[in-house]
Amino acid sequence: MTKKQMNALSVTREENYSKWYLEVVKMAELAENSPVRGCMTIKPWGLGIWENIKTEFDKHFKAKGAQNAYFPLLIPLEYLQKEAEHVDGFATETAIVTHSKLIKDENGKLVPAGKLEDPYIVRPTSEMIIGEAFSRWVNSYRDLPLCINQWANVMRWENRTRSFLRTSEFLWQEGHTVHATAEEAEKMTMEMLNVYTDVNRDLMAIPSISGPKSESEKFPGAEDTYTFETMTQELKALQAGTSHFLGQKFSKSLGIKFQSKEGKEEFAYTTSWGVSTRQIGGLIATHSDDDGLVLPPRVAPSHIVIIPMLKNKEKAEDVLEYCKNIKSELEEMAYYGRALDVVLDDSDSNSRSWDWVRKGIPVRLEIGAKELEQNTVFMGRRDLSPKDKKAIDRNEFVSSIKATLDEMHNNLLAKAETLLNDNIKKIDTKEEFYTFFAKDEEGARAPGFALTHWNGDADLEAKIKEDLGVTIRCLPFTEEGKEGKCAFTGEPSKQRVLFARAY
Amino acid sequence: MTKKQMNALSVTREENYSKWYLEVVKMAELAENSPVRGCMTIKPWGLGIWENIKTEFDKHFKAKGAQNAYFPLLIPLEYLQKEAEHVDGFATETAIVTHSKLIKDENGKLVPAGKLEDPYIVRPTSEMIIGEAFSRWVNSYRDLPLCINQWANVMRWENRTRSFLRTSEFLWQEGHTVHATAEEAEKMTMEMLNVYTDVNRDLMAIPSISGPKSESEKFPGAEDTYTFETMTQELKALQAGTSHFLGQKFSKSLGIKFQSKEGKEEFAYTTSWGVSTRQIGGLIATHSDDDGLVLPPRVAPSHIVIIPMLKNKEKAEDVLEYCKNIKSELEEMAYYGRALDVVLDDSDSNSRSWDWVRKGIPVRLEIGAKELEQNTVFMGRRDLSPKDKKAIDRNEFVSSIKATLDEMHNNLLAKAETLLNDNIKKIDTKEEFYTFFAKDEEGARAPGFALTHWNGDADLEAKIKEDLGVTIRCLPFTEEGKEGKCAFTGEPSKQRVLFARAY
Repeated sequence: MTKKQMNALSVTREENYSKWYLEVVKMAELAENSPVRGCMTIKPWGLGIWENIKTEFDKHFKAKGAQNAYFPLLIPLEYLQKEAEHVDGFATETAIVTHSKLIKDENGKLVPAGKLEDPYIVRPTSEMIIGEAFSRWVNSYRDLPLCINQWANVMRWENRTRSFLRTSEFLWQEGHTVHATAEEAEKMTMEMLNVYTDVNRDLMAIPSISGPKSESEKFPGAEDTYTFETMTQELKALQAGTSHFLGQKFSKSLGIKFQSKEGKEEFAYTTSWGVSTRQIGGLIATHSDDDGLVLPPRVAPSHIVIIPMLKNKEKAEDVLEYCKNIKSELEEMAYYGRALDVVLDDSDSNSRSWDWVRKGIPVRLEIGAKELEQNTVFMGRRDLSPKDKKAIDRNEFVSSIKATLDEMHNNLLAKAETLLNDNIKKIDTKEEFYTFFAKDEEGARAPGFALTHWNGDADLEAKIKEDLGVTIRCLPFTEEGKEGKCAFTGEPSKQRVLFARAY
Repeated sequence: MTKKQMNALSVTREENYSKWYLEVVKMAELAENSPVRGCMTIKPWGLGIWENIKTEFDKHFKAKGAQNAYFPLLIPLEYLQKEAEHVDGFATETAIVTHSKLIKDENGKLVPAGKLEDPYIVRPTSEMIIGEAFSRWVNSYRDLPLCINQWANVMRWENRTRSFLRTSEFLWQEGHTVHATAEEAEKMTMEMLNVYTDVNRDLMAIPSISGPKSESEKFPGAEDTYTFETMTQELKALQAGTSHFLGQKFSKSLGIKFQSKEGKEEFAYTTSWGVSTRQIGGLIATHSDDDGLVLPPRVAPSHIVIIPMLKNKEKAEDVLEYCKNIKSELEEMAYYGRALDVVLDDSDSNSRSWDWVRKGIPVRLEIGAKELEQNTVFMGRRDLSPKDKKAIDRNEFVSSIKATLDEMHNNLLAKAETLLNDNIKKIDTKEEFYTFFAKDEEGARAPGFALTHWNGDADLEAKIKEDLGVTIRCLPFTEEGKEGKCAFTGEPSKQRVLFARAY
């Protein structure tokens, strides 16, 4: 049997990364394309991952004082008009509701009717409608800080879509906060960025590089946008989430004012911050391999699958009983804040083990008459080769399971950190930069990330983007204050910035 | 001080029920009207209730084998065309997306542009788009049963809205299942109805009457619709949720077919079932009183508020410390599946105790120097009169808190059951029926529910609705098989049916 035949997927990362990504999504049953332009259907295994991500973030947000609320899906068009930069950022990708009912035309075909006097847009983000509420909710310094988070669906039409990474509709959270001072708002912006990078690292085993965006890559209407960027195995950058300091821009256009302790009426300072189902795209792109999805254990919908081998009919009942006992015992245990989730797959499929490899479940146990007799389990770990399975004493397996899962998490994180560190290059000349980022073949990996000095000029940034399809991902915090000379002009540079191809 | 001045609300249930309801919602900070036609904004205290309802239902759904998934918000118009009855049911209340971008007109005003060739509707429910996926996901009997649940927002334009009870956008869950046989699908329909009534009773302390809907009150396209109806303190019926047996109607219009064990291609049987944020409306309407919201403890976002009385400056620090210790100790305990949630309200408001009465928090503790000295807490319970407070030994309070909360739950349930039982009347003549339901004054309570024999005729049902604004809420299971004579025609009746005014 050749390697290819044994493989769970028909294509490797090396052969064609884009096709590989889509096949991982498909074979792991994470999502599928829908009949709606650019929208996906998130299947149970994919949504299970999202629910775990959501629960973990929610816990952190609440610890920072955020409360959840829910605002309308539709935003009156006139609201968009209030913040010019903001509306320009979303105008070309909005879904617009113009009619309120359906009637049948002469051929019996349904057609829109009941034209609305004032159209609505389906929210692409909710600054404008939440800000309107804030303008009524905030009156005094006593009402501040006000920290609201919303879990919701949003729409931004996309033409070139890819499951989880870029879709017209996506699920996300958007935090919106109001503060009495710029300092407090800036602090909140940064704290939420840290929540994001912490959860990415500790739950999903994804390292990232964070820092402010350049002027031209900022969120429409923001004073400062902070991002955290992760590296996919294609060596492209993925903007995994952002946190915005909005200054007084939105509070001035929406009238978010408060009476200060001194009795003066002042405009408040606001922030917003969001992560989305794109997090799942990052998860897939960081960890998966040529056998399919790899799930770090803390975010996996199920931690362990038990596959009973029931061919020996005489022993079948005892084997099943043995499996069920192990399952119950494991389910009594909690790992990283939730009970261990164990699947018993007694279906009659011949490909159970490979099916679960493709779905990325962290631990697989194959248990038959031999294991029953020897009081062992035959274990495969998703962070190791699928062939690298071994027998372990049953009780030892159970008592060490949490340590095993932690070890897997750490292995995956270390692997991702190595990939990231091995593929960031300090580049100091224009020539080297252009050679490094020379256009590569369709489907091939990108060359990696470059840390390069830049003079801060937006035109130069635009030229590089046009020439090479490479953008400034962020001004990494780690390079802050380390001055140098712009690689392109020789002019002074405040710090190295991170250049990369991105999704 | 008159009673009115002491009250938290400006109007009583007796004086004007509709105004009272809106004031409860407002004063408890559950929700507010939004600038979007018929849509509300759900504030943190309201959404906290929804999150608890959601968590509890989700647990039950998963125990019945349902898995969560997420389908697109927008549904292609052509899909609606496939099931004639279904589309007729929603045609007049759909929000329709017809354009894909915004441009500025000559006056700088934003106007819709990028007309879509094929419009979309914002989902009013997802039978058509989930059914389309099912037609691809289901191939063999091995794929069945397939049980999918979706937590989502939906839109149905409403003209006369009331927070939580009737809004154009609402949050809900919709379960959709596929089965090989009618029996299995019917069984699932009934099991989910039971989950609904169980959770209403055990989490929210709301009793209900359940049974099938009459032909004319069924869900558009369903073979059978089962409902559970609760009674508000206005003595109106509230359809709290429904479970539908769809037979083969949707599987035939959408092509949901499977290969049976015998190798034959057959159409599957489907079900759908849903509850929404209307559950919160039911909760308010069942339990609240003239002092504001009353929350049964299992569904309350927070269980206990501690109000430190810090006027004695010398003791202030010690009192606060004493309060914090009680808080930490309580938070270590779990009640009905989640940790006790305790608020320490040390704000400088003069109305803290009343504020929390209005918000319906189950237990209030006022703690000052005296309590510190005597090692007691001064406790108020929301199911008792606000003035009925008493001192209890601190340790006794902590060790009995779960029993106290259970007792409150049981009290509230018993009170709601009494209201329901006391206001259902068996009525056997047309005259008595018409006298009972004679149109009442604006803002006054309805007369109650009637259990009356009916010949099954839809025209008679329509006439009664026209004459009195009274509808058949369901054919109660408890009356099944108890034959009699129609009160209106003297013709045979299979059972008494439940008549009431409804929301």
